[in-house]
Amino acid sequence: MSRTVRIDLAYDGSAFHGWQIQPRLRTVQGDLSAMASRLLGREVKPTGAGRTDTGVHALGQVAHLVCESRDEVERLTRALRRTAPDDIEIISVREVSPDFEARFSAVWRRYEYRLLLGRDLFRRNLEWQIHWDLDRDAMAAGAELFSGAHDYSSFCKATSLKENNVCDVSECRFQWRGGSAIFHIRANRFLHHMVRTLVGTLVEVGKGLRPPAEIRDILAARDRSAAGKMAPAHGLYLAEVGYPEALSDPRYRANGAGLRSAINEEETR
Amino acid sequence: MSRTVRIDLAYDGSAFHGWQIQPRLRTVQGDLSAMASRLLGREVKPTGAGRTDTGVHALGQVAHLVCESRDEVERLTRALRRTAPDDIEIISVREVSPDFEARFSAVWRRYEYRLLLGRDLFRRNLEWQIHWDLDRDAMAAGAELFSGAHDYSSFCKATSLKENNVCDVSECRFQWRGGSAIFHIRANRFLHHMVRTLVGTLVEVGKGLRPPAEIRDILAARDRSAAGKMAPAHGLYLAEVGYPEALSDPRYRANGAGLRSAINEEETR
Repeated sequence: MSRTVRIDLAYDGSAFHGWQIQPRLRTVQGDLSAMASRLLGREVKPTGAGRTDTGVHALGQVAHLVCESRDEVERLTRALRRTAPDDIEIISVREVSPDFEARFSAVWRRYEYRLLLGRDLFRRNLEWQIHWDLDRDAMAAGAELFSGAHDYSSFCKATSLKENNVCDVSECRFQWRGGSAIFHIRANRFLHHMVRTLVGTLVEVGKGLRPPAEIRDILAARDRSAAGKMAPAHGLYLAEVGYPEALSDPRYRANGAGLRSAINEEETR
Repeated sequence: MSRTVRIDLAYDGSAFHGWQIQPRLRTVQGDLSAMASRLLGREVKPTGAGRTDTGVHALGQVAHLVCESRDEVERLTRALRRTAPDDIEIISVREVSPDFEARFSAVWRRYEYRLLLGRDLFRRNLEWQIHWDLDRDAMAAGAELFSGAHDYSSFCKATSLKENNVCDVSECRFQWRGGSAIFHIRANRFLHHMVRTLVGTLVEVGKGLRPPAEIRDILAARDRSAAGKMAPAHGLYLAEVGYPEALSDPRYRANGAGLRSAINEEETR
């Protein structure tokens, strides 16, 4: 009987060519696959909730692996954490419902984007260091306009557009502490380059290059050229991924019904 | 007429094999030498105040270079900062007295050693992360016993001992902020591995493995085996180097007299 293991992990993306496996390049998925394959004695490839780009970090990436036996689950839960290189931290490894799928079961994701007004040599790969002052009130006003469901085509890499580009943003705000800020954004889904384009545009608002109300026009344009320059990758963190509660139970199964209806069933039980 | 340029710099030591030039290895002195040589069109080799080991960082390293003309000075002051790689920050470049010598004119140096009680993936190369609690009062009491002039043979790498191993420590204390600490130490001179051995020993005091008063016995022993294990390199920062004020003036010259007497002369003028 197949069993599914959920792996929560953090990583410093500086030395990785992103999440996704690529030949001859170091990737997080590649490292995790090698770690797990060594423990299980067979080739396995974990699936991740978010395919982070080169230089992007994670505080709470989630991956899953399908195991063939209870023994395999135990080998991973016991030893995976110890086999991690020093720029990956395995936060937890546990068995979940066989219906759990790191990417497709996710109901929301939260990203953080870190800014510093100034320079710190020792954090150069961990935040976007900006050498001018920013109008924090204008940025807050701009960020508010992203709340709710909008078509985010203007904030998506043009070649990565989907048929439906509506994202429902449930949190979008800057948290300032002295000269540094964490931008928090939570949504049911994200398009490619969306957070970085959104932050780049809000920084242009903070520099006085665009009024905050222009955000409305940019969203309405549904055209990438309407938005601002993309912020650098090294300020971005995949912070947290949300799943239906039921899927954390190894005994939970949807019994052949579609996942979504299974969850609804569970919720109304 | 020869002119001397003083270079103040900071660096993240993570990717360097220390300060001192070595064939086929990346070093800070090697990078700085290459940067300056390119600008001047001739081979130059800067001298540093502190020859930091592999992985050790600097907030305020000082180096000097001897130039052959005013034009050479101007080329360095104008362009050196721009040619730095992203893990070296050139803080300032300025002409000083021809008597200035980064290593031998220094009258004191200050080091910082950074500790964290806990784990932070993103600062793993920037502090010693310790997974147990420490008795801060005991560590403060131990640190106090290092103040003043003592023979530090017990805290020196055995093969690096000098004829005279007395160092005059003018500051030695922990500054705590939440779960992290900066250990500050200032002295007229330091022996090889002295700060790391001192911190390693004080952490053993903090763990309750040695009473603070044992520091006195360790100093008296003048034997490396009396002290504790050396703390890791990546928590150490060369923070600041002090020089006689007179040497910052490009017109100041000792007129053939020894440096020390020249300074005394200057001070009583």
